[in-house]
Amino acid sequence: MDAGIDRGILFTDQYQLTMAQLYFRFGLHEREAHFDHFFRTYPNYGSHRAGYCVYAGLAWVLDWMQRARFTERELSFLRGQRNLKGNRVFGDDFLSWLSENGSFDGVRVLSVPEGRVVHPHEPLTVVKGPLAMAQILETSLLNHLNYQTLIATKASRIKQTCGKALVLEFGARRAHDLAANAGTRAALIGGVDFSSNVGISHLMGIDPKGTHAHSMVQAFIALGEGELSAFRAYAEVYPDDCLLLVDTINTLESGVPNAIAVFEELRRKGHKPVGIRLDSGDLATLSMGAAKMLNDAGFSDTSIVLSNQLDEIGIMRIKEQIENNAGGYGVDADELIDRLVYGIGTKLITSSGDPALDGVYKLAAVRDGLNRWLPATKVSETAEKVVIPGNKHVWRMYNRNNMAIGDIIALADERPDTDKTMRLHHPESGRGMVFDSIEPLLVPVKEQSTGALDPAYITPRLDEMRKRCAEDLARLSPGVKKISAPEGYQVFLSSKLWKMKQEMTHSFGDESKKV
Amino acid sequence: MDAGIDRGILFTDQYQLTMAQLYFRFGLHEREAHFDHFFRTYPNYGSHRAGYCVYAGLAWVLDWMQRARFTERELSFLRGQRNLKGNRVFGDDFLSWLSENGSFDGVRVLSVPEGRVVHPHEPLTVVKGPLAMAQILETSLLNHLNYQTLIATKASRIKQTCGKALVLEFGARRAHDLAANAGTRAALIGGVDFSSNVGISHLMGIDPKGTHAHSMVQAFIALGEGELSAFRAYAEVYPDDCLLLVDTINTLESGVPNAIAVFEELRRKGHKPVGIRLDSGDLATLSMGAAKMLNDAGFSDTSIVLSNQLDEIGIMRIKEQIENNAGGYGVDADELIDRLVYGIGTKLITSSGDPALDGVYKLAAVRDGLNRWLPATKVSETAEKVVIPGNKHVWRMYNRNNMAIGDIIALADERPDTDKTMRLHHPESGRGMVFDSIEPLLVPVKEQSTGALDPAYITPRLDEMRKRCAEDLARLSPGVKKISAPEGYQVFLSSKLWKMKQEMTHSFGDESKKV
Repeated sequence: MDAGIDRGILFTDQYQLTMAQLYFRFGLHEREAHFDHFFRTYPNYGSHRAGYCVYAGLAWVLDWMQRARFTERELSFLRGQRNLKGNRVFGDDFLSWLSENGSFDGVRVLSVPEGRVVHPHEPLTVVKGPLAMAQILETSLLNHLNYQTLIATKASRIKQTCGKALVLEFGARRAHDLAANAGTRAALIGGVDFSSNVGISHLMGIDPKGTHAHSMVQAFIALGEGELSAFRAYAEVYPDDCLLLVDTINTLESGVPNAIAVFEELRRKGHKPVGIRLDSGDLATLSMGAAKMLNDAGFSDTSIVLSNQLDEIGIMRIKEQIENNAGGYGVDADELIDRLVYGIGTKLITSSGDPALDGVYKLAAVRDGLNRWLPATKVSETAEKVVIPGNKHVWRMYNRNNMAIGDIIALADERPDTDKTMRLHHPESGRGMVFDSIEPLLVPVKEQSTGALDPAYITPRLDEMRKRCAEDLARLSPGVKKISAPEGYQVFLSSKLWKMKQEMTHSFGDESKKV
Repeated sequence: MDAGIDRGILFTDQYQLTMAQLYFRFGLHEREAHFDHFFRTYPNYGSHRAGYCVYAGLAWVLDWMQRARFTERELSFLRGQRNLKGNRVFGDDFLSWLSENGSFDGVRVLSVPEGRVVHPHEPLTVVKGPLAMAQILETSLLNHLNYQTLIATKASRIKQTCGKALVLEFGARRAHDLAANAGTRAALIGGVDFSSNVGISHLMGIDPKGTHAHSMVQAFIALGEGELSAFRAYAEVYPDDCLLLVDTINTLESGVPNAIAVFEELRRKGHKPVGIRLDSGDLATLSMGAAKMLNDAGFSDTSIVLSNQLDEIGIMRIKEQIENNAGGYGVDADELIDRLVYGIGTKLITSSGDPALDGVYKLAAVRDGLNRWLPATKVSETAEKVVIPGNKHVWRMYNRNNMAIGDIIALADERPDTDKTMRLHHPESGRGMVFDSIEPLLVPVKEQSTGALDPAYITPRLDEMRKRCAEDLARLSPGVKKISAPEGYQVFLSSKLWKMKQEMTHSFGDESKKV
């Protein structure tokens, strides 16, 4: 494998390059264009769906833009590409232009900062720059933003379900290749507390978490020792971090009794045992049985870590099962729920049920020869897929209790914060929305040169992204945050924008016949 | 973002390192261990499931193993890690050992070569090496093999459904971060013909494919030109590769007529137009309508590329719909199906429906102080999760027609190819399997030093991996290859292995009580 060429500027789709060459031939390649990244629908996991998304991935897009260049290596690949007739696909003049100008230095970016709550159809990242380069950017931008937003959203839902309990991300082994790292990052932004993934945790500035696997117990048994020996060995090396995996043989008949024996030894030596982990079987039932045994032995303050194919629905069911049945086990349901910790693997890192966000990157405007923005749109067989044209901004409205009551997509020259005469258009709820305060969501994150990148967005701090996320969630209606059948959040178009969209859609057929 | 630390040897789970330190403390870190990579169940996509998998990802594991090292950078991260009490997690003695010995040079690997058809419970990659390093390898090995096998399998199913039609991979924008590259590689191994992803296509030695997006048509319209102008511009720049996306406005009323007008111009200039692409709406209906128009204009030899949320089921339905309805459109169904090309995005690169292979890496044996292999296993609450112990090999049996009739998992010292007295154990079909020929599936791919890596496996050629895949598929029963409800493929255990597994499972409870 070759490390590099597949991660640089050729991490793009072939048609971006063929279109860029076409723009070059027609002298349109340096014409300023405006593209919007937005998604059309919230993730739908089948039996449940999201009512909001958490935006993530921007810093990795900006980082990629800084590094991606057409070096001789990339150019030689393109030079060697042949078409169906065996002729070169890319001409020397175009490749020469790429060599000189093929960077993202001339591209400006506005974006919703990472960690913020976002909704469908809103421009979330806005790219303005030379048509050819803004086009080549599409694939990498979508790749990073779609995946990290998908995972930050799933992590947020899982964290909402877990309440105050600690949530650990364990998914590296089932992640899609290096998405293990991007996914861990997004999960940490969206609400997960820690991850087992060592390298990316360090990069994010937090310690990774983990204890031991079945293999350690297996190794001790194969060597003629038993589970108890394995646990004792672990306690000897990690006396103050002793969290034992108790299901290698039989959870309640072997694992928990052996763990308790080791915990008692630790206690006698003045150490405080951390807890146990359950990784198979009926987790709710086993946690109640284990809690009773731990309580009876005086270890009611130890944690019980649950893992094995968990997601927000699985966690809800476990909590329900404990609430309904704990009494029968002689355990207090609330106490047990308060000591649970959740280890989340496959279903978070792959966003199981809906493994892709339908985010798109659409041309919204292009400058004419007189430097005026001309709005662009796309009609489609399905109304939902029509692109909202024009140079736009997004605003969020709050009521007097500081709760978000809706977002506004408006033209960039409209000022919903000061213009009290502005009208909103929403297909269902109509007009006349009253708000107490309003804020713009898009901020400039990259000016027309690499030097002007704002460190707050290219190297954002995890705690700041998490704070943004927590603040937005606190201002979001509980109905919108529901795990199943959430209530709809309202996204309005300004009347001016709505009219422009309607007019362009209707005139589109005529426009298309122009030559 | 920091490029490197998250992709090197710290691309692992924290517990691998804490276990490695424990082995170090107990003098077990250099004891030879044997781990198996295998999966338990075929991917299940909900309404349909796979009856075989295509193995992929090995070269990327071997490449990672060659590069991954504990440099001072990694060690300083580990040195800074603190436990719950604020003390260091890793001791200097252990870090010093990692610094000197923390590579995979001493690890041997046997594996099923990439591209081969494989089945559940079979050891597919076997790792033998020092316990500590073999343990640290787990996360990265699983990550690469699980994902690429998942995608090669999905690609194989899609290719099976498409028959002789060309299949293009278009998923980079919805892939999970850099899995776009690993997924494209796996898709190419499993049966996809080309990809739009530029960088990885070049690395795999094939040209990427692509034409233009809606944005090109939108840009021309915004600038006061029309769809026809956009098409004409494309034909001018790419006269011999003219494939036009016809659904920006209205497929049958605007796109196809405009494409035909441009095709006629090309024809007059002596060029052969390539075809059209449909990317929205009811693809079967639109393809019949478009085919009729193209035929009437004398372009019956152009391709019709279909894309938009396709997978094996979507493709089957399109073909059925065409078979049942083409006549009504004045189109020959077989001719139309023969000219179709499929562009597959999200649902292939994310393996939508089942976005993770349940592949695991389990300790199967460990050497005792006398250098004998001691088998290891793991009992579980669920019988399916019991690990098959011991040092094993896998064999494939063929009948006189050279069709695969079953695989055998046997102990490494058993010889099913020559020992005619060997008995097989299968829960359902019992014993006495008769085969005409038999071959071992595992081959040595890495000896105990990096120099001895076989280039056939560390830098395998795409055509060789595809050939292996095609040969295995040709020898697989059509029933096993069915897209829905495939028949079961038989995987046998040798009687000797079966007995060992049963005995170890039963004695496991007793073993666990040893101290």
